[in-house]
Amino acid sequence: MSVAEETKGIAVRARDASRKLALADTAAKNAALVGAAEALVTATARIVEANAKDLAAAEEAGLSPAMVDRLRLDADRIAKMAEGLRQVAELPDPVGELLSERTRPNGLQIRKLRVPIGVIAIIFESRPNVTADAAALCLKSSNACILRGGKEAINSNTCIGSVLSESLASSGLPADAVVVVPTIDREAVGALLKLDDLIDLVIPRGGKALIRRVVEESTIPVIKHYLGVCHVYVDESADLDMARAITVNAKCQRPGVCNAAETLLVHEAVAEEFLSAVAGELERAGCELRGDERTRKLVPGAKPATEEDWYAEYLDLVLAVRVVTSIDEAIDHIATYGSAHSDAIVAADPGAVERFKREVDSSCVFINTTTRFSDGFEFGLGAEIGISTDKLHARGPMGLEELTSYKYVVTGNGQLRT
Amino acid sequence: MSVAEETKGIAVRARDASRKLALADTAAKNAALVGAAEALVTATARIVEANAKDLAAAEEAGLSPAMVDRLRLDADRIAKMAEGLRQVAELPDPVGELLSERTRPNGLQIRKLRVPIGVIAIIFESRPNVTADAAALCLKSSNACILRGGKEAINSNTCIGSVLSESLASSGLPADAVVVVPTIDREAVGALLKLDDLIDLVIPRGGKALIRRVVEESTIPVIKHYLGVCHVYVDESADLDMARAITVNAKCQRPGVCNAAETLLVHEAVAEEFLSAVAGELERAGCELRGDERTRKLVPGAKPATEEDWYAEYLDLVLAVRVVTSIDEAIDHIATYGSAHSDAIVAADPGAVERFKREVDSSCVFINTTTRFSDGFEFGLGAEIGISTDKLHARGPMGLEELTSYKYVVTGNGQLRT
Repeated sequence: MSVAEETKGIAVRARDASRKLALADTAAKNAALVGAAEALVTATARIVEANAKDLAAAEEAGLSPAMVDRLRLDADRIAKMAEGLRQVAELPDPVGELLSERTRPNGLQIRKLRVPIGVIAIIFESRPNVTADAAALCLKSSNACILRGGKEAINSNTCIGSVLSESLASSGLPADAVVVVPTIDREAVGALLKLDDLIDLVIPRGGKALIRRVVEESTIPVIKHYLGVCHVYVDESADLDMARAITVNAKCQRPGVCNAAETLLVHEAVAEEFLSAVAGELERAGCELRGDERTRKLVPGAKPATEEDWYAEYLDLVLAVRVVTSIDEAIDHIATYGSAHSDAIVAADPGAVERFKREVDSSCVFINTTTRFSDGFEFGLGAEIGISTDKLHARGPMGLEELTSYKYVVTGNGQLRT
Repeated sequence: MSVAEETKGIAVRARDASRKLALADTAAKNAALVGAAEALVTATARIVEANAKDLAAAEEAGLSPAMVDRLRLDADRIAKMAEGLRQVAELPDPVGELLSERTRPNGLQIRKLRVPIGVIAIIFESRPNVTADAAALCLKSSNACILRGGKEAINSNTCIGSVLSESLASSGLPADAVVVVPTIDREAVGALLKLDDLIDLVIPRGGKALIRRVVEESTIPVIKHYLGVCHVYVDESADLDMARAITVNAKCQRPGVCNAAETLLVHEAVAEEFLSAVAGELERAGCELRGDERTRKLVPGAKPATEEDWYAEYLDLVLAVRVVTSIDEAIDHIATYGSAHSDAIVAADPGAVERFKREVDSSCVFINTTTRFSDGFEFGLGAEIGISTDKLHARGPMGLEELTSYKYVVTGNGQLRT
């Protein structure tokens, strides 16, 4: 069987499973999630054994110790995956919710109901725990999922997928509601992305190259989890102590994630006072500064920023810094260089806050707080499949509700159109 | 300048216009819509003159009289376009609506606000009045639009676009909020579909070939307005008089549109009585029947249906008919051959209704009424840009709200993430 045929076979099975899963009630789904959590723990030795193959291959391929550690699964990490499944079981079921209801003058009752999307393909490059997390969120929202992780985790992901599938079957749900693509062949992704009659949504999570490939090849709708080029703008009206704490938190609290700040914009009226205060603190935290000319006059330790720095998602302890003459210049900078992910203003002036809130076209606009709060858990969504940088369907943190669609149910008693 | 450069220039202008338009208040947008309506009427002679070029070309190209008539604009039709703009002015403004609000334990206030999508490209093959209709809906929802109509209407569309742009500018809104692609070069569409950094959404409205081309080439999110292979299922519990009236209405009231029924499924327990009653009425309305073997035994005038008939969107007075042994078979038929657009059940049994409602995965499920009600106006949305056959973002009739996205505005007083 060719890779394309095998991939299509997977999608057909997932499609069939999605029809059955759409009819499962909340209790059945929750019981299956709790059962799957137990199954993962029970299968610890089996998962560790599969993971050992990935670890051996990773060491042979010369992956860095940090990368190898990311890949590693042990009893403790497997227990945490299981705990994640139990937490998803606790969340409210989004499916079946009545979103709106109206009665038309002709007596037709029009109800809009939340329903699953159907089949969701998730293509990711992260730790193997994503396999269990993504499967749980899809299951709770009654979607079948096709999971394709990174090649370095193929044995771990396939094993976790098998444990989940077997557990689903023993809970009376379709085993194919969770399918892990069992090959590292790149062709499988290409084949998957053309199956728009079988798959309803693709969510790519990973680096630029992966996202571009998916966007360019997919005929299935895509919700991108793309760059986070996040800004903190310090207005002339800012409480500078607050601005300093927010800047350091946004950049340094966890620099390797998409909601960390990458560029600091400072109003010229407060640039001298603010930058002299914040620069030392950032430098003590190990953060490299790259500034425009005006910044470098105020912060002698800053390196020169190039045009590329304004576009950069460093995901590291590096911060681009620019002095702006007005809030207009800050808003224009964000529109030009930003990725419409998460941007913050620190300001006391309500007029400045209002303009930033209205004019910055980002999924999350933060006022007097840190971009690091751009997160499904922090927003109270209970869980997160990722952070969408798209404007269609889901924007910003995506929880269970964002993994659903809706249908209209129109009830009449013989009404005709004339 | 190459077609690709010219197309990119259009998108850059639309992008800039969208930023300005996002800040326009409701009164300004409504005044601009009313002004544009007046401008269209004032420009009647100019539009008719441009339209005459398209009509002459159409006649020279040997288009059918019906096609030429669809293309024709006269004072009456221009007045109707203008009236459409005034109606959109009357609709509530979706932008700025507070969709949800919550305060987190740490005091962060998280508000979800409705915002425009940005730049929307609409690629259509219909009458030139779509230019004005689509522009009005985009304007009201604060989206800039790039309009690309059929080549046979290029002069009419370009002229209407110019009148609208000039009118917007005189109302103080950006002229480039409405741009008609001024060339019939197919390359322009190809170039447009790759501008995912400038355009947020593509809505194709037209035949299969157009939709497939857009889906295959676009790197921009697409909301398809695809096939309507709509079914009426007559259950064994149906009121057969009601079923007859609904079947005839769904098929014959306006057969050329996407929400007309294309296939009739009849439970075997009522097939003889029902088909003998409805067949004559359909045939008298000029409708050709194509039946499976059991249907043809009951309806001697029916032609044999082939496998292709079950997939067919006739858009004509032709109806495929199949006798099914159970509601399961009806639901399976719809899942296999349908297009998930609009499907109806006629049934008195609440159990059958519930199963159909839950198990038929279509954007609109109709109970004891006709599929012809699948329509934004009939649903009370006030207007309609089309009917989405996708599950992401918008499903079924798309009104003004479906032309919006949202952003999160998170307000704090110095909260940090720890």
